[in-house]
Amino acid sequence: MRVPFDDLHRTLERVLLSLGFEASRAELCARLFAETSRDGVASHGLNRFPRFVQMIQAGVVDVHAGAQLTSSHGATERWDGRRGPGNLNAHRCMRQAIALAREHGMGCVALANTNHWMRGGTYGWQAADAGAIGICWTNTLPNMPPWGSSQPRLGNNPFVIAVPRPAGHLVLDMSLSQFSFGALESYRRRGEALPVTGGFDAAGELTRDAAAIESSGRVLPIGYWKGAGLSLMLDIIAAVLSGGRATHEIPPDSLQETALSQVFIAADFTSRDRAGTALSTVEKIVEDLHAAGDDVRYPGERTLAIRERSMTLGVEVDEDIWDKVRRMAASG
Amino acid sequence: MRVPFDDLHRTLERVLLSLGFEASRAELCARLFAETSRDGVASHGLNRFPRFVQMIQAGVVDVHAGAQLTSSHGATERWDGRRGPGNLNAHRCMRQAIALAREHGMGCVALANTNHWMRGGTYGWQAADAGAIGICWTNTLPNMPPWGSSQPRLGNNPFVIAVPRPAGHLVLDMSLSQFSFGALESYRRRGEALPVTGGFDAAGELTRDAAAIESSGRVLPIGYWKGAGLSLMLDIIAAVLSGGRATHEIPPDSLQETALSQVFIAADFTSRDRAGTALSTVEKIVEDLHAAGDDVRYPGERTLAIRERSMTLGVEVDEDIWDKVRRMAASG
Repeated sequence: MRVPFDDLHRTLERVLLSLGFEASRAELCARLFAETSRDGVASHGLNRFPRFVQMIQAGVVDVHAGAQLTSSHGATERWDGRRGPGNLNAHRCMRQAIALAREHGMGCVALANTNHWMRGGTYGWQAADAGAIGICWTNTLPNMPPWGSSQPRLGNNPFVIAVPRPAGHLVLDMSLSQFSFGALESYRRRGEALPVTGGFDAAGELTRDAAAIESSGRVLPIGYWKGAGLSLMLDIIAAVLSGGRATHEIPPDSLQETALSQVFIAADFTSRDRAGTALSTVEKIVEDLHAAGDDVRYPGERTLAIRERSMTLGVEVDEDIWDKVRRMAASG
Repeated sequence: MRVPFDDLHRTLERVLLSLGFEASRAELCARLFAETSRDGVASHGLNRFPRFVQMIQAGVVDVHAGAQLTSSHGATERWDGRRGPGNLNAHRCMRQAIALAREHGMGCVALANTNHWMRGGTYGWQAADAGAIGICWTNTLPNMPPWGSSQPRLGNNPFVIAVPRPAGHLVLDMSLSQFSFGALESYRRRGEALPVTGGFDAAGELTRDAAAIESSGRVLPIGYWKGAGLSLMLDIIAAVLSGGRATHEIPPDSLQETALSQVFIAADFTSRDRAGTALSTVEKIVEDLHAAGDDVRYPGERTLAIRERSMTLGVEVDEDIWDKVRRMAASG
């Protein structure tokens, strides 16, 4: 079913207010969840909201805690997320990275001690909306084996790159496993084989069977050994720049997944480009890509169409989860 | 066969001097080639040197041109490579990014109008040797199809991330195709199947047959659609930050592959870490990784062993290519 965006936003906001959020923080936090569903990523929007509430109720996420600057060196800053709501912390830090980029050409905010940022792409869109290039990533709990091992020691650390473009930003938002855990679940439920191999089965064979991968826990990094290496490097940089936890220190229990480390980089894009050269460069690259075939899309291309449909027809929601959240809002 | 490192270095240097390089530039350029072979990456070391000489003789690479600063904004700078030797330009720009990082916490140099940087990992090792985190990438000629197309419109844009570590730096140096063109050639020559699918054959089927992929030209991006998206984003950022060419503007002929765009980012790592916390974080992450199994390696781990053997026993060289280069040096 579909519900009006504003209805979704206000319902989530009411739940957050009932949990003790300050008004402006409830508004923003709810909006980021609602926008994620609006953009077609329900797994990190409405569908994720009940778990977020559970983590607040369990005391893992502190609704009153806002991110704070702990140290600064020119274009780079360290912030402490104080285990506050992950999307508010991430949004605050990308905002700060953008401000640093305006001053120094580039800005980098490393955030320790935060919680799950929900949809990583959110902060890419945020940077691009502000006219900046955005690059950000997060570490996660250990959920992906290094190459040559069956033990989950790496995170599938989502990695985001965004470039502004007036006709529609380019936003790459990818986890470093070939398929996210949400995607594996969807394929299993539909009884479909994965389009390409997504991991190993219990016997250590590469497989397209989502259920077999879920049960072995051996998801495949993108590019096999290459993605495993990239995951390790992103984890290290997040941990050392923020002074926060590395993946191996994060509890391997998704309801206790907390004290994550994240990096937000913004680069000035258009402030010195009065002639519009950079924008025209982006446009020509997109044109060349599109000339490669009718099925070729740039990262984020499908989002605008989904967003438009959501705003016209309403945001698509899972009926059971929507009912559950509405009951939370009513009883709050 | 193996030759002493110094012999390799001086032989290459003599060739470069005969081509008109100034003394200090010949020394460094030759050293970067020799170190690449020393580290076990002959494809971008000695084996690549004859093609480099050809490109100089064809006037594609200008031996006299050094990279120059064209504009600056705080922690970020634009440089013009003036179609000089790619490894000298890249080395100069990473050096500058490191200097900016010392001042601003992070530094970014975007380089336009340069030539092939040979082994990308060189500039990762350079940053790590200077105690900085290094991130760099280059665009290339169109050699990889976007997802959903059979036309090579993307580059397999090598991407490098390095983190300093006293017992051995971590250096990820990967192209965004599952196998480099050099790797495909090696598998074909040995008559071996690729360990995992590496591209499409002429019929559009995924295959582990290197020759079939070379002949279709349809190499697979790491992570399929994910690596294709990453390649596009890195190309855009390199082109817009440097003001230089995007992949679609680079001649699709490897002897004319010139006027590339590159990005060099360095981040301060240890200058504010007097307690050694960051180094100890890296060490603990490496320990946890190694605990995952005897076959598990961090990126760059094999390099130090190869390097040590090269320095003790001599650098492994292809006899034919070594003879050819020695003749160039003798006749120069």
